[in-house]
Order: sequence, then C-alpha cells, then structure tokens
Amino acid sequence: MRPRVDILDSTLRDGAQAEGISFSVEDKLKIVEALDNLGVAYIEAGNPGSNPKDMEFFARMLNTPLQKAKLVAFGSTRRRDTQIEQDRNISALLSAATPVVSIFGKSWDFHVTKIIQTSLEENLRMINETVRYFKKKGKEVIYDAEHFFDGYKNNPEYAVQTLQAAVEGGADCLVLCDTNGGCFPSEVVQIVQTIAGKFQTKLGIHTHNDCGLAVANSIMAVEAGATHVQGTYTGFGERCGNANLSTIIPNLQLKRNFLCIPDEQMANLTYTARKIAEIANISLYKRDPYVGNSAFAHKGGMHIDGVSKAASSFEHIDPGLVGNKRRFLMSEVAGRKTIVEKIKEIDPTLDKNSPEAEQIIQRIKEMEHQGYQFEGAESTFELIVRKQLGKYKPFFELEKFQLMTEQPKMSGPSASALIKVNVDGKSEITAAEGDGPVHALDRALRKVLEVFYPELSRVHLTDFKVRVIDSNQATAAKVRVLIESTDGETVWTTVGVSTDIIEASWIALVDSIEYKLLKELEKKIKVYL
Amino acid sequence: MRPRVDILDSTLRDGAQAEGISFSVEDKLKIVEALDNLGVAYIEAGNPGSNPKDMEFFARMLNTPLQKAKLVAFGSTRRRDTQIEQDRNISALLSAATPVVSIFGKSWDFHVTKIIQTSLEENLRMINETVRYFKKKGKEVIYDAEHFFDGYKNNPEYAVQTLQAAVEGGADCLVLCDTNGGCFPSEVVQIVQTIAGKFQTKLGIHTHNDCGLAVANSIMAVEAGATHVQGTYTGFGERCGNANLSTIIPNLQLKRNFLCIPDEQMANLTYTARKIAEIANISLYKRDPYVGNSAFAHKGGMHIDGVSKAASSFEHIDPGLVGNKRRFLMSEVAGRKTIVEKIKEIDPTLDKNSPEAEQIIQRIKEMEHQGYQFEGAESTFELIVRKQLGKYKPFFELEKFQLMTEQPKMSGPSASALIKVNVDGKSEITAAEGDGPVHALDRALRKVLEVFYPELSRVHLTDFKVRVIDSNQATAAKVRVLIESTDGETVWTTVGVSTDIIEASWIALVDSIEYKLLKELEKKIKVYL
Repeated sequence: MRPRVDILDSTLRDGAQAEGISFSVEDKLKIVEALDNLGVAYIEAGNPGSNPKDMEFFARMLNTPLQKAKLVAFGSTRRRDTQIEQDRNISALLSAATPVVSIFGKSWDFHVTKIIQTSLEENLRMINETVRYFKKKGKEVIYDAEHFFDGYKNNPEYAVQTLQAAVEGGADCLVLCDTNGGCFPSEVVQIVQTIAGKFQTKLGIHTHNDCGLAVANSIMAVEAGATHVQGTYTGFGERCGNANLSTIIPNLQLKRNFLCIPDEQMANLTYTARKIAEIANISLYKRDPYVGNSAFAHKGGMHIDGVSKAASSFEHIDPGLVGNKRRFLMSEVAGRKTIVEKIKEIDPTLDKNSPEAEQIIQRIKEMEHQGYQFEGAESTFELIVRKQLGKYKPFFELEKFQLMTEQPKMSGPSASALIKVNVDGKSEITAAEGDGPVHALDRALRKVLEVFYPELSRVHLTDFKVRVIDSNQATAAKVRVLIESTDGETVWTTVGVSTDIIEASWIALVDSIEYKLLKELEKKIKVYL
Repeated sequence: MRPRVDILDSTLRDGAQAEGISFSVEDKLKIVEALDNLGVAYIEAGNPGSNPKDMEFFARMLNTPLQKAKLVAFGSTRRRDTQIEQDRNISALLSAATPVVSIFGKSWDFHVTKIIQTSLEENLRMINETVRYFKKKGKEVIYDAEHFFDGYKNNPEYAVQTLQAAVEGGADCLVLCDTNGGCFPSEVVQIVQTIAGKFQTKLGIHTHNDCGLAVANSIMAVEAGATHVQGTYTGFGERCGNANLSTIIPNLQLKRNFLCIPDEQMANLTYTARKIAEIANISLYKRDPYVGNSAFAHKGGMHIDGVSKAASSFEHIDPGLVGNKRRFLMSEVAGRKTIVEKIKEIDPTLDKNSPEAEQIIQRIKEMEHQGYQFEGAESTFELIVRKQLGKYKPFFELEKFQLMTEQPKMSGPSASALIKVNVDGKSEITAAEGDGPVHALDRALRKVLEVFYPELSRVHLTDFKVRVIDSNQATAAKVRVLIESTDGETVWTTVGVSTDIIEASWIALVDSIEYKLLKELEKKIKVYL
C-alpha cells in the first residue's frame, strides 16, 4: 500500500498572520475552493474566537460543502481556572460547526508559568479537558503542541506529559510544533523518533522558517514517522513564514512516493500557487521551488546547452509534473545557444556557424556592456536581429522633437511635446501634452503616426520601468527604461538605455511602435503567401 | 579550539546566473568590498573565460587589495582532447591572477558521456591535469565536483574516482555539489560521511534550492564533516537560487558555535544583505530568515503579547545579534514610536501625547499613502517635521523653470534648463545644460543659488534612484525619486513623488539644497549660542 501523508493547509489561519496579508471573507471562500480542488486533507480556515470576520466565514461555509478536504477551525485550550462551558472562545469554536477542530496548548514549561501564568498541573488539565470536550461533541480533534521542540529541549518530561494529557483526552493526532522556527533537522529527527516510540496516536509536524529549515524539518519528521504535515500553501506566515506546502507536497509525492494529494492534481500545483498569490494580492516569489516563475529558468550557457541535450542534466524533475514550464533566459551568460535559437525563429536558414549569427552575438554583447538587458525585452531583441540581418526597414523617420516642462504649472499637464516625423517622403507635425515629458512624448508620437498607421490607435503602454544603472554618477548616470505595450490582444516589451531618461524612453517607445507595425505587416504578408 | 567553517560567496558568479540580475563592473567592485568587510573566507567573483566584463573586473581587482577575503576566479577543467596550454578558458583563468581558482569538473558519468561527450577516462585526465596545472602555477585550488550527489547515486565508484583524480592533482578542497538541487538532507549526510571516510582532503558543500532544502543540506553536510560552505549571500542563483549564506552563517555561528566570520561582524549581516540587494537593484525578500524585513515582525495578538513579556517566547534569537530589528505590526506601536523619537530630536519639549506629534504622524501617513517612503530619506523627513512645527523658513523661492529637450541632438548635451529664483526679494536668473532634463535642472538650480549661497559649490549628487510606483498605469504612473547628496563630508538623502518624473526630481532636489542650507545655518547659530 502506498503510504499517505495528510496535508493540513493553514493559509487562512497561520498564513493570515503574515505581514501584508489581509483576507476578506470572499478571499477566504475562493482560497478554500482552490485548496479543496487540489485535494489537501484538511483546510484550517480561521480562529472563530479571535475575530468576527472568521465567524462570518464559518457561517458562510455551512452552505458550501467541500469535495475532498475537511474544514478545520482553530482555537486555544480553555482559559486557566475556567469552566469549559463558560469559555467564550470554546463556544465560538464549537459554533463554527466544522467536522474537525485544531486545539493548541502549551508544551513548554516556561510558556506555562511566564506567559499564560498558570501552574504546570492546571495546564495539563486545560489540555485534557478541552480535547475531551470536543471529542464528546463528536469532533475529530487535532492537538497542536505549541513550542513542542523548545519545550522538549528544556523539559522533556513535562513536554511528554502535555502530549499524554491530549492522548488521554482522546486526540486523533498529536502535532509537534516548532513555533519559533529555531530547530535543526537533526534535532527534529531525534525528537520525532523518540515521541513516535512513546505514543500510538498519529503524529504531525508544524514548522516555521526562521532558520530557513521549515521544509527540511517537515521532510525529516515524515522520514522519522510523522504522517500529518501542516504548513501554508505558499509559505505565508508570521515572521519568516510557515513550511511551504507547494514545496513539501512535490518533495514527498514525486521523490518519496507518498500520497499527499491525488496524483492527477500534481500538475495543478503551480496554477494553485499563482491563484492563491493572486487572491492574496501579492507576487508569488519567483525563486519558489517547483512553482516559482524562475524555478526552471536557465541562464548560464552551459546549463542551457546541457538541458537542450538532456533535460535531466540541469533539472531535478520535469517541470510539467507540477504544471510549471522550462524557460531559457536571454543574457550575457546565456551564451550563443539561446541567441541562435531566437535567430533561427527569424531566419531558419541560419545556424550557429553562420557569420551573421556571430555578428549578432557580438552586437548583443556590446549592447549588454552598455547596460542593455534583453530579459523581458524580447521585442527589442527581435528588432536587433532583424536590423543585423538587413531584414528591416524603419516605418518612420524622426525629423525632430522638442519637449518642454515648466514650473510653476499653469494648469493641467506640466509637459508638452512637439514632434515632426517623415514617412515615405511625407512630413507630418503635431504636439501633445502629458503628466511629465515621457507621457507627453508617448502621446505625441502615437498621434503623429496614426495619420499614417491608423492601427496604432489601439496601442497603449501597460508598464513602464526605470532602472538607474551606474547610480553613483547621480543624475548623469545611465538609465534603462523597460516598456510593456499592448493592443488589447498581444503584449510586447522593449528597452532603451541612455544617460538621458528622455532618450532611453524614446528608444524604447520607438521600438514598441516599430514592433507593432512589423507584426501588422507580417499578418498582411501572410495573406498573400 | 573553536571549529571554523570557511565561507565561499559566489554572488558574483553563480548569483549572476539568477533571473533579473546583471552586475556592472562597478557593482561587482562594491559587492566585493561589502563581502570583504563582512569577513567571508573566499569571494568567487567571476568566470574570466566567459565574458569580457569579468576580464575587466579582474584587471581592476589587481589594484584593489582585499582585507580579509581571498579572491577566487572560476572556470572549467580543460576541454576534452586539448593540450592544457592551448585551452583559451584555462589561459583566461590564469590571467585573472587571483590567489585561488575554483575548477569545476564532471562527477556524473551521464554528464561525461552525454553532455560533454567524452570518455570516462578522458574526463578523469581533464580533472587531474587541470588541478595539477594550477597547483604548479602556485594557486590554491578548490575543486568543485559538479553534480556529485546525482553522480554518486548513479555510479558511486566513478564519482569517487573523479574526486581521486582531483586529489592526485593536488586539490586543496573537494566541494561536493548538488547542482540540480534535488537531494534530500538524509542523502546528503550519508554521502558526505562516506566521502569524509575516504579522503583526508578538506570537504566543501555547494547546494541549490530546487527542493527548498539548500540551507538544510549545507547544515547537514557540516554536521557530517564538511568545513567549507559555498552559497550566495542573499540566495541569488540559477533557477531557485543557491544556498543562502545570510541564513547559513547565523545558523552555524549562533546555534552551533562555528566560526564563519569574525564575531564582531555578525551584527552587520542584515546591513550587508540590504546593501547587496540595493547594488543588485532588487528588493530583498522580506521573509528571508534573520535578515529579511519581516524576519522579526510580529502580527498575531498572542505573539505580540508573548514577546512583550519575554522576547524568547516567540523569537528564536535576539534580532540585534544579526543587526535586524523587532517590529510589531498592526498595533502601529513601532511606527509611532520611531516618529516620536525623531520629533524629540528636533524639539525635546514634545512627547507622544503632544498634539503636534499627532499632526506630524497624520501628515506622514498621508504622504506614505501618496507613495512617499522615508526609509533612506531621513532629510526629507526632518524637513517635514520642521515644517509642521513651524521651525522652518525656505531659503529660496522658485519663480519659474523651463526645461527643454530636443532630438536630434545638435552636439553635446541634449537638455537645457532655464531657472529663475528669488532670495529675500532679489531675483536671479540663469541657465545650464545637461545629459537629460534632470541633470540640466540640477546644474541650473545650484548655479543660480551659488550667487546667494557659495557654500553650495561643494554639493553634488552621489545617487539618484527612480522607482515606478503604480507601474501598470505606464507613463502616467507615479514615480518616486530618491536622491543622495554630499558636500564631501556628510551624506544626506531626500525624496520626491509625482506622476511627473521631473516634478518628483525637483521636489527631492529642493529638499537636498534646503537641508544643506539648514545644516550650515545650524552650524553658524551654534557659534553664537
């Protein structure tokens, strides 16, 4: 039989404690749906005692049956010296009406006496009675032993007694938590093995990433006998975050044959990570293992050469297994191979030994030395290749532009641009205003060219980025401007470099327009071929 | 004796293979300086055979002695079937003239036969001869056994033979590489222990983060006997990145008592990470262990309560040990506290309950909402506090400026600025040219003000940074301009925000000048007090 590891996702509970994260009830419902589709065993979705938003969320969930996952509500053991029926948090937890509850209690004697300030005996009663209470109410009870590893390292006997109290209360699973994220894998293995030898109850692991070891500690705990892993799907969480489940699931399932989610869902790992990041309104970290945008991006020339010969030479898995994609980046270290591949797309008769290829590579290297960068500026790259191959004729010539900015502003836009261009011997002049000189120039250029090329009317810029290259030369330093443009159907990116930000923007703007007109021409040519 | 672990930082070599990273020669020199100050043992700074920029860099380094670190140049073993003296990459590596070279060779039989396509015997000769050659030239030689773990798992005998070839060539250190980042900690421990039993040579570890295990694998290798750890300081690198040294160093030094860098440099770990990220022009990942901005940020109510009672309740180390800071989120206690401290510096009669303090906090919040950011713009912050307190009178008034940019350029600078100011009722007008409108404006402003304030003649800008804030509104998006200025003795920083880059620059330029004149005035006043 294939061994199972139950995954508990706490994106909506522990993940919500991350800096910059704030989920609305709607956000939470969408994330529950994404995680349920993926097929994790448990979704820990909130702490009903802690805020009204979570109460509303659990009320909404009563009418939202899950397909695969079980919904979990999270809360503390009862307060010290309190009748359990009179504890408001316990009542709130019960009223969430989830099939599963996750109860956290203190394992570390220091926390018992110094933080919640009660006796060691009362803490054991709090754990035992709370677990017992929810079992009697028919719940599946996951017991989270908070700070278990720190507690065990300081007072192993007492830490074990807290687990014993939960077991005697009827806990279905004992989760050993590295709440402060300070443990090393070798410690985790040893402690999990010891605990596994003492209890028959299912063991779980919950780690934080303060030492960059959350994933490793989870994996090591599973190797030592844990069969339940808690984390957050993209690693969100307090401080450095929780164990990243989008890394742990493929590690366990692809490399150790554990069943964490249905096999047919593995190819949805990347999509789910991007979806959750999107709902949370953050950018997914591009270097995230398996699911990040750079996870299978190759830049070094030897790496690209190797992967082209055999993917496994520089890839630990096939990116398709987790729904991600291989990417070859354009760059000075990428070397010839990527450049040659791009050249072949434009002229299939060329190969790496063609003198034209050598000329283009030299030109690219020169431009990179000047501060150009072609990652994220593929359209400028294509134009350079075409110019070098003589397969290119400009669609217009600039006769001149003049830009003016004034302070104090009269009223309205602060900058104005006058522009004169020539297309096939015919001159045209116009002017436009804008918020700043680049805005005015962009408007004026498109306005004057629409006279000749009405198809430009749909073009507009969607992104504009400025990087100062040698910034310690201050305002005379070089700047690199990256522009992203769209016509509503496709998106293209161009780049310009100069010591003058206006000139750098101008170079990128011209490439954007030229590229669009080139693509329009190619469409027309295809009709006649 | 306290055990040592030698740290080799490859930010400038393997790190340069990360997506979005492109270092200029100046960037490289600055990063070398930062790493040398920190006290890592080795700085692997480039592959001289691969591109002209690295050649130029190593030439510049000949006149730049390092204080603590040794400079390392990186390159491959000789090509197959080639006389070593005739191998261009080998000559380039030698001409870098570094005290240490790092030579990588193939350990995995599959790579030998399928990727570099030679015989297993020739590969052993390539390793042996290359190491021997550089030893004869008097170099310290680090041998990087590329894909060692994958090679060992597939053909342990051959993998060991490749190390033997390096040892017989005289290698000073054998570095076992998990090049594809696919290994688990339990495998790393076992393989490192086996190899440590076979060779007397010092062992190193080089891991990648494709399974989120790079830090753990490095730590486990050290526990198994490795005494040399390779990585990149902020984890930049191909695909998911290299082992993150800003995590590994404190893990080993604070938690296992290894000596990785001088103890007195530990508190510079955070500063160094931010500095390198700044030079690389990327944002440091906020959840990075130890050095990230969120690493000690507490949000959950119980966590904040716990940390307030005893820091160790939810912090695995004191943040000050690595030069980082505790932050309380949501409560805004931290934010308010910092602002009040700054206000007190300017007016010691005020405290957090003063109505003036409340007004200033409101003003700061409004400005932050508009896109301002005062980290790294303390001078603008001081001016705002003074303006709110009424302790401020402008040193000049702008009557107008007019900026002009033209293309095609006549000759020389492309932009010109006309400016007219008024100081105490007296008007003055002048003009200046520059490479781009901001450069022209900066020159014109200082030129016209020097008539009144000759002390401005020593002021110049040392840094100029542009960030697009809402970048998907393209050229009409807001930009934030950060300016660093100096008079040769002190350095100050100012900020401006606008949809118009010229206006944003102007705001920051004016603050820079006003701040300098304010400090000059304060000096004069002190003489008379």
